[in-house]
Amino acid sequence: MANTTSRLEKLRGLMKERKVDVYIIPSEDSHSSEYIASCDARREFISGFTGSAGCSVITLDSAALATDGRYFNQAAKQLDSNWTLLKQGLQDVPTWQEWAASCASGGKSVAVDSSLLPGSAAKKLNDQVHKAGGAGLVPLDENLVDIVWSTDRPARPRQPVTVLTDDLAGKSVTKKIMELRQELCKKNCPGFFVSMLDEVAWLFNLRGSDIPYNPVFFSYATITPTEAILYIDESQLTDACTAHLQANKVKVKPYETFFSDARQLHSEVAGKRQGDSDGMGIGKFLISNKASWALNRALGGEGSVEEMRSPVGDAKAIKNETEMNGMRSCHVRDGAALIEFFAWLENQLIERKTIIDEVQAADKLEEIRSKHDRFVGLSFTTISSTGPNAAIIHYGPEKGNCAAIDPASVYLCDSGAQYLDGTTDTTRTLHFGSPRAAEKKAYTLVLKGLIGLETAIFPKGTTGFALDCLARQHLWKNGLDYRHGTGHGVGSYLNVHEGPIGIGTRVQYTEVPLAPGNVLSNEPGYYEDGNFGIRIENIMMVKEAQTEHCFGDKPFLGFEHVTMVPYCQSLIEVSLLDKNEKDWLNASNAEILEKTKDFFEGDELTTAWLKRETQKIE
Amino acid sequence: MANTTSRLEKLRGLMKERKVDVYIIPSEDSHSSEYIASCDARREFISGFTGSAGCSVITLDSAALATDGRYFNQAAKQLDSNWTLLKQGLQDVPTWQEWAASCASGGKSVAVDSSLLPGSAAKKLNDQVHKAGGAGLVPLDENLVDIVWSTDRPARPRQPVTVLTDDLAGKSVTKKIMELRQELCKKNCPGFFVSMLDEVAWLFNLRGSDIPYNPVFFSYATITPTEAILYIDESQLTDACTAHLQANKVKVKPYETFFSDARQLHSEVAGKRQGDSDGMGIGKFLISNKASWALNRALGGEGSVEEMRSPVGDAKAIKNETEMNGMRSCHVRDGAALIEFFAWLENQLIERKTIIDEVQAADKLEEIRSKHDRFVGLSFTTISSTGPNAAIIHYGPEKGNCAAIDPASVYLCDSGAQYLDGTTDTTRTLHFGSPRAAEKKAYTLVLKGLIGLETAIFPKGTTGFALDCLARQHLWKNGLDYRHGTGHGVGSYLNVHEGPIGIGTRVQYTEVPLAPGNVLSNEPGYYEDGNFGIRIENIMMVKEAQTEHCFGDKPFLGFEHVTMVPYCQSLIEVSLLDKNEKDWLNASNAEILEKTKDFFEGDELTTAWLKRETQKIE
Repeated sequence: MANTTSRLEKLRGLMKERKVDVYIIPSEDSHSSEYIASCDARREFISGFTGSAGCSVITLDSAALATDGRYFNQAAKQLDSNWTLLKQGLQDVPTWQEWAASCASGGKSVAVDSSLLPGSAAKKLNDQVHKAGGAGLVPLDENLVDIVWSTDRPARPRQPVTVLTDDLAGKSVTKKIMELRQELCKKNCPGFFVSMLDEVAWLFNLRGSDIPYNPVFFSYATITPTEAILYIDESQLTDACTAHLQANKVKVKPYETFFSDARQLHSEVAGKRQGDSDGMGIGKFLISNKASWALNRALGGEGSVEEMRSPVGDAKAIKNETEMNGMRSCHVRDGAALIEFFAWLENQLIERKTIIDEVQAADKLEEIRSKHDRFVGLSFTTISSTGPNAAIIHYGPEKGNCAAIDPASVYLCDSGAQYLDGTTDTTRTLHFGSPRAAEKKAYTLVLKGLIGLETAIFPKGTTGFALDCLARQHLWKNGLDYRHGTGHGVGSYLNVHEGPIGIGTRVQYTEVPLAPGNVLSNEPGYYEDGNFGIRIENIMMVKEAQTEHCFGDKPFLGFEHVTMVPYCQSLIEVSLLDKNEKDWLNASNAEILEKTKDFFEGDELTTAWLKRETQKIE
Repeated sequence: MANTTSRLEKLRGLMKERKVDVYIIPSEDSHSSEYIASCDARREFISGFTGSAGCSVITLDSAALATDGRYFNQAAKQLDSNWTLLKQGLQDVPTWQEWAASCASGGKSVAVDSSLLPGSAAKKLNDQVHKAGGAGLVPLDENLVDIVWSTDRPARPRQPVTVLTDDLAGKSVTKKIMELRQELCKKNCPGFFVSMLDEVAWLFNLRGSDIPYNPVFFSYATITPTEAILYIDESQLTDACTAHLQANKVKVKPYETFFSDARQLHSEVAGKRQGDSDGMGIGKFLISNKASWALNRALGGEGSVEEMRSPVGDAKAIKNETEMNGMRSCHVRDGAALIEFFAWLENQLIERKTIIDEVQAADKLEEIRSKHDRFVGLSFTTISSTGPNAAIIHYGPEKGNCAAIDPASVYLCDSGAQYLDGTTDTTRTLHFGSPRAAEKKAYTLVLKGLIGLETAIFPKGTTGFALDCLARQHLWKNGLDYRHGTGHGVGSYLNVHEGPIGIGTRVQYTEVPLAPGNVLSNEPGYYEDGNFGIRIENIMMVKEAQTEHCFGDKPFLGFEHVTMVPYCQSLIEVSLLDKNEKDWLNASNAEILEKTKDFFEGDELTTAWLKRETQKIE
């Protein structure tokens, strides 16, 4: 537990100087990144809470930290007595926005670093503050936490950037920019501003390593009808990058000049708009609905800016043939690594009676993975969890302070890697001994859900929200469920979580229909607190399905799974599977065996494990 | 086909006098009714199109009629050459709002009778008109069609109203008003205004017959913290009604004074607000988001009115024990009527070789239904359709101009009735001979979907949107689908369609979770244009489910079906059903036999049919 008293005192001193009554500290960086660099971990610095999601609200005499169900236990442990924990999603617990608004009643002011909150979120919060009788939300250009943190705050990373060649990217930068300009042209848009780091990386076929696990680099970009500008610290660009950008007619400017250039462009366009006789010729600037309030303000605010789902994010979510082939290929290698790891782990635990702890296992898995072609690094922290720890959905074992893997309990491993040709994310739950009936039943219900979703066929236009219940239906019939989404979009040698699509109960998943080329996870689970946890996760690609009929001339779509790791035979309660499910399982296992067996020539241990785990189920 | 030239000429004359360039004529009456009285059929009068859904947009030199996929063929037949048909939902076809906005470009004005459009719809349309360069949407207090229609327009119905006694309604008016006031109290609301006719009928436990099939009466109501006022033509109230209203402390005022009273209340409350020192004591007026723009304006508009999903509609959708028992009971009687009818029809067609047309069959069904206890009337026009006509989703056969029922084709019958204790809506598709393989397959896929949804178990909080794919999944796997929702809410001796819940792909069905007491239809289908149509429809009630576990202490819910009519044995392809589906079918058929057989004592023909159609499937 951190002692946050002195930090809070300093922060409150700064708040008083600036006449700020309520100060908001979001988790995100100024690019709305889910994973952040350590220099941006402001919410963690001020609160001591290290989870990936949450928001702090500080008043002159109170401090609240809001986070979701994944982190209730962790936050309760990490917060000291200065803090109130707001368990988001529980009945009668206010959202952090409601909390902030209520703290502002009686004409008090709420402030936030405007680069850390999306414009739409700021607008909504401002309304809430006003409604509660507060003085409104004030945008600050400086960050008060950064001032408190000045002495030991890490520098912003400036790691070298590399070119993703067209044979890996599948589409040239010139073509991507051309297609984006065609979108902008439809709206007479004078400029689109790319603020998400993975969107910049995708658009320019560049990769970096400024953020852990995500091959991105600190940058912004501006695309106008005539110019494409990448804002980045030039020291990060290799000669190859510079040549690549020149060849694609991309200008490079310093990262720090992005906002001033945006303000400059706004005033130029505003001038042209005034000279524009009917006022209809020049459209608004477009920014992503995840872009910051600061960017929205720099571009002139509501009158001259339209926020929308990013067209770059939409394009990125539809993988091209090269990217899809890369996904297939890297998942075979990644599957081989997981198979070798599971065979090794079982041998160590059962035959050799070695004590292996959760972190040692994760490290071994990384070591095996790193030997494979095109391996770059992990795509997120490996979740390696035994017994009751497997029930903690986002468990992260700590080196030297984690459990030994219990061969008599379930072992859940959720891991993934970055390869030059794709990003992987796989979860398998195993048991090295004799599972209990309850564990087998839960595993099999989860597996039935995974199969139900994988084998779905659906008309074009269907969203991930509409399909979610296929993964939950069998658990539901037994009164069981899981408190997380069923699937997230996956980048192509990019972030392991990406929008705009997903499968789950969040209403945002009703917005964008699934389309051929989408890459998604399928990861139902079941978690019994203090007891055990089950999750099975495959990565799937959306593709056109071959159906007997084709109603209404709209294509029907289905999934192709690319994950090549067997399911745990000892955890399957065969009597709960119907014929179609057994057929699917046998066909999948046969494919996994066929595609991975050559990796284990001469490795009898792994080959034996693989053959046993892919044997036919009757 | 109507000749609308002269009507349009007169209307355009009135438009010119009032400087209206574009005039909107919605289908709805001033209560947002789905079914309307003939006096309110303005859109039909002006366009000649008789379908239940659509909107007309008239300019000085053009006329457009927008309707949805159910009515494309019918509209094309009924519209004369003055009209452009806007097929809503087709790609590249503008919505009627977009059409109206584009007609207004260049500073033109759009007008509408403000009592016929919800406030939110008016606001959105006004924005669209402005965006397209129009002069905005003008609210008119008069209706221009009514002026054209003055000579032969039917009078507004003023049918007698009756009391629904507490033993049928299950909850007293006093209790309903008290519960509504508790809702209003939370928001310091000075008044809720009830504008939907079924909401008024439900709130006051009254029923009428002003609108075909819907047991409602023209009325409004105002509920303030101290008063409950019913606005109705007093001539419609029997002595029993008057006594009932007095006993429940409900004032009665003339229908016509509702808007002037609303304006009066607004000015009174506005005065109090000014005297209210901190301005926080008095909340806004609440109206349903389906209430008219005229009502919103009468109450002072945005600053003093909040539109929301009607709390009366929400309460009405949760049936009480008495209403649920009534639903069960009336569906047994209604099922007996359908069983007797189907047995009679088969005997006429097959044994007696009688020629029976679609309308004769529908009339016979009504005759049989009307003999049953507590029968009041039909709940909608019976869809009685043979062969290719069954593929027309909202087919309505016309007397003397309809097809003879073909014993060698499918016969689809979608019908329902109003009983004092509930409302029914049942669809069965039958075949009296030897169905083709394609018909059997389609029927069985539809049946599998019906069973998949009926047997669903889901956690509290799940919406009808999330469950929809359970009804479609088997069709989808064969590349088939249907272009309508899967389920709608059903009133309790009230409208056969009611909100806010439903099951389908409309995003509105993500808003309100299903809850115990909800009554819904489950009606998947499949339609092959020009060939045949299949639909099977049961009415289900949401109830708490008994599950082995209960994850997270939230109750799990499921369905109880109340419809008691067998499925067509000759159309079932048994090889496509799995064991669970066969078990469900056999249990359902056994229950149907048990609950209805006593109605047919001495009726050997019906008894034989019932036993054959409920026989066990292996």
